[in-house]
Amino acid sequence: MPSQSPMDLALTLAEEAAAHGEAPVGAVVMEGEVILAAERNRMKALGDPTAHAEMLAIRTALQTRGTGRLDGCDLYVTLEPCAMCAGAIAHTRLRRVYFAAEDPKAGAVENGIRLFTQPTCHHAPEVISGLGATRSETLLREFFRALRS
Amino acid sequence: MPSQSPMDLALTLAEEAAAHGEAPVGAVVMEGEVILAAERNRMKALGDPTAHAEMLAIRTALQTRGTGRLDGCDLYVTLEPCAMCAGAIAHTRLRRVYFAAEDPKAGAVENGIRLFTQPTCHHAPEVISGLGATRSETLLREFFRALRS
Repeated sequence: MPSQSPMDLALTLAEEAAAHGEAPVGAVVMEGEVILAAERNRMKALGDPTAHAEMLAIRTALQTRGTGRLDGCDLYVTLEPCAMCAGAIAHTRLRRVYFAAEDPKAGAVENGIRLFTQPTCHHAPEVISGLGATRSETLLREFFRALRS
Repeated sequence: MPSQSPMDLALTLAEEAAAHGEAPVGAVVMEGEVILAAERNRMKALGDPTAHAEMLAIRTALQTRGTGRLDGCDLYVTLEPCAMCAGAIAHTRLRRVYFAAEDPKAGAVENGIRLFTQPTCHHAPEVISGLGATRSETLLREFFRALRS
């Protein structure tokens, strides 16, 4: 039986984030079939607005791998990365980014600044969007609806 | 006798970075007269290309302050922040950013994406550039010249 796909794992982590009162975003870094990192938003828990799932996953993956780079590795994240996280993706030279839901308000990959297309961005990963989007969008919508009610 | 100014402290940290083989960048977060954080680049030491002086200083300042934000606080950094660091500055709602040298190749404040002017950026600090620029530019030039020789 196949194990959970990386995006399914990221979505499970997003659900776990919501259960802890964090905006539901999960992120997984893979090197081939190996999970280097699996993290979720922890901004509230850490009192740190930079503790996005992607930033935590990237730092954990760097520690796990120990080469100072994530070239040849792939990031799976349930929401389009913001400028900060897109910058970290470029700095660590991730090969490929899969993201689920688009973020028209703060996304920086296919919305907003489209960082990877900019001349001041020195590494552009391959980007694949849409995988798991419906489940991620539902999670985000339900989380923010509950916050407002 | 007046104590060292925040930018002088950041420049001293940049020199310390260079002495350890790191690109010379230092960053200080102040709340009024209080130093919340004073950090320098540690990308090589930590094997982490995201360990920019600003990111480390922002995380340390958040821990020191414990309020989950840096509103009312000011960042002094010896080089124009990149997209990642500019994103972190916006997320943490820093009041003011002083940067010394411009970075036409990777800067994201007065060069490149000019993040704080973008509609997808939800907090724009006041920006003051140029303070300490000559000393920072000299440090950077000498560091990269030595690397190439």
